[in-house]
Amino acid sequence: MSGAAQAVMAELGRTEALELLTAARVGRVVFTDMALPAVRPVNFAVCRGDVVFRVAAESRLATALDKAVVAFEADDLDACGRAGWSVVVTGLAELVEPGDEFDYLAARLPEPWAPGPHECVVRIRTELVTGRRITRLAG
Amino acid sequence: MSGAAQAVMAELGRTEALELLTAARVGRVVFTDMALPAVRPVNFAVCRGDVVFRVAAESRLATALDKAVVAFEADDLDACGRAGWSVVVTGLAELVEPGDEFDYLAARLPEPWAPGPHECVVRIRTELVTGRRITRLAG
Repeated sequence: MSGAAQAVMAELGRTEALELLTAARVGRVVFTDMALPAVRPVNFAVCRGDVVFRVAAESRLATALDKAVVAFEADDLDACGRAGWSVVVTGLAELVEPGDEFDYLAARLPEPWAPGPHECVVRIRTELVTGRRITRLAG
Repeated sequence: MSGAAQAVMAELGRTEALELLTAARVGRVVFTDMALPAVRPVNFAVCRGDVVFRVAAESRLATALDKAVVAFEADDLDACGRAGWSVVVTGLAELVEPGDEFDYLAARLPEPWAPGPHECVVRIRTELVTGRRITRLAG
């Protein structure tokens, strides 16, 4: 079990973490739903430095995220190599009001994977950005 | 953007969701850290029906998880095919006390990726298990 490759863990700076986040396509929004911790994968984009994605207007997600402090995680983890990176954003989430900003963001967002309409745009401010990378040195 | 393949989303039953979880090797524990939502990837195992993994004794994770209700998510998401599954467990987490149960679980756990000692074993009861799968039908 104790492999020959030594693990090295590094904290990522904000710039590098945001670069990794920008290149990712799927992340997980972490929020509170009826007083319980909750998590949901979404496809997203980084626009103007913030995490942005679509949700259905009548979803619990839309209700739970508006004006709440949430976390957002993306990663690329190699289970075989036991290495990879993870980035976590913590910040205020809000539903973007209809208007120029909504139109700008909506035009840059990927189509949600799940079927059905996703009329709302959620923006998470990247107030706190942390990340970690685990690499392995040859033994 | 509106691809030819139609998306179909299905809720997973507890049995299927636990099977997927058992086959996964990496998941994300979702908890509250100093009143903020937090998330951390860990490698884990399903033992006796519960999610089990190691943490460092002096970590904030160990402190934050003990006797807290948390969520745990694992997924397999294909960003290109825009399909995949996600399973979420919600339940009580606790540090397992030294003893027979600790020894049994510790012997079945994968070695943590991160360097350094990980002396504690965390068990999350799979009280609530939900899951979703998105598949695409050829257009």
